[in-house]
Amino acid sequence: MKTLILVAHPTEQDSGTQAFLAQALESANSSEINRRVLTLPAGGHFNAQQEMQDVLAVDRLVLQFPLYWYSAPAVLHQWFEDCLLSPYKEKLAGKELGLVVSTGRPSHEFGLGQRQGYSLSELLRPLAALAIDLGLQLLPPLVIAQFAYQTDQQHQQLLVDYQQYLQLPAGYSFADQEKWWIEQLEQRAAQTTDPKKQQILALLADQFGTRSDRLDDLKDELALIKQVEEGDEL
Amino acid sequence: MKTLILVAHPTEQDSGTQAFLAQALESANSSEINRRVLTLPAGGHFNAQQEMQDVLAVDRLVLQFPLYWYSAPAVLHQWFEDCLLSPYKEKLAGKELGLVVSTGRPSHEFGLGQRQGYSLSELLRPLAALAIDLGLQLLPPLVIAQFAYQTDQQHQQLLVDYQQYLQLPAGYSFADQEKWWIEQLEQRAAQTTDPKKQQILALLADQFGTRSDRLDDLKDELALIKQVEEGDEL
Repeated sequence: MKTLILVAHPTEQDSGTQAFLAQALESANSSEINRRVLTLPAGGHFNAQQEMQDVLAVDRLVLQFPLYWYSAPAVLHQWFEDCLLSPYKEKLAGKELGLVVSTGRPSHEFGLGQRQGYSLSELLRPLAALAIDLGLQLLPPLVIAQFAYQTDQQHQQLLVDYQQYLQLPAGYSFADQEKWWIEQLEQRAAQTTDPKKQQILALLADQFGTRSDRLDDLKDELALIKQVEEGDEL
Repeated sequence: MKTLILVAHPTEQDSGTQAFLAQALESANSSEINRRVLTLPAGGHFNAQQEMQDVLAVDRLVLQFPLYWYSAPAVLHQWFEDCLLSPYKEKLAGKELGLVVSTGRPSHEFGLGQRQGYSLSELLRPLAALAIDLGLQLLPPLVIAQFAYQTDQQHQQLLVDYQQYLQLPAGYSFADQEKWWIEQLEQRAAQTTDPKKQQILALLADQFGTRSDRLDDLKDELALIKQVEEGDEL
């Protein structure tokens, strides 16, 4: 699955969040994912043909931006205006649209009666309408609230969440996530030349695999118990 | 009441809707209303101090724009980013925020299960959140759907609706609208030198006044009937 990340940020160079996400992407080490920062050309307009070339080549487009006045930054709106034109926009149907949205306010402030008044689902309605219009499959947004105030552990979790958001299929399950972990560990084991590291990574991958199998067993047992309780024939 | 209209339109010069609204404003002939088209300076950024000077001087700010990809045009987002900063944004609390939104699609297409999927109230959530944030009193938007397809009669109605939207107090009633009509007729009668026109305009104003009085009488009668039916003492 080919993925393109379009970063829209008025001061991308100064953003700790964007630097972290760029690093996370690098450590994912995937040839299937490209990242591009939207920079308005000197004339004030994007070149649609140039811009849409790599958008049309991917299966998943990820728009990555901080919430500015409860909306995407102006540069992304400009990109929409300049690039989502015929004959390109008609060719987008069927692709996936991901949103990686960072906010300066804590998550709990977005909601009815809260300080920001509306939920993020409500505030992102224009992008949901855009997805409907273009026939894109909208993925649940990955929200990053107050990155600068997050703990190291939260940052670790974000790194994993972000990599999974970019790489896993739409509507991914817990099992998909586990498979992803095993692949990651095996990949890292293959890349390292240190035999001790290799051993540890192989052990971790094995543990994950065992855990997955045990989970499957537990699920089967649960299904069995339910059947018995409901008096069904075995 | 001082009002400032900020027009955000990528190709304002070519817009029939904007030309019509500019004309309607001119015919309102009010010294209390100013209109400005947002034009991005060569550097790509607005000057906050310069821009906010006349915003801070008004009681009502009206943002007037066509819906672009279910949102305001990029130039308005840029204006927000560049201008809604300290120490200006803190001084906006208490002012009114009006929205004059034109759409290329018919009104009935905006809603659950309809072609555009969401109502305009939903799509304009980011501006509602902005109003909450800044302490602005949001007025119900004036929506202009498919101006180019409207009949002459609909354009006439729009002219009146627009002038009233700009001039009447927030939450205006039917009585406010009638008063507005009388003032308009009297004003026009005072401006003309043609005695025949003066007579007709005075007559119309008188008729409006009589109609208003009769409506008040009818309301009193209705209240009386209700009281009798409910068995209250008179």
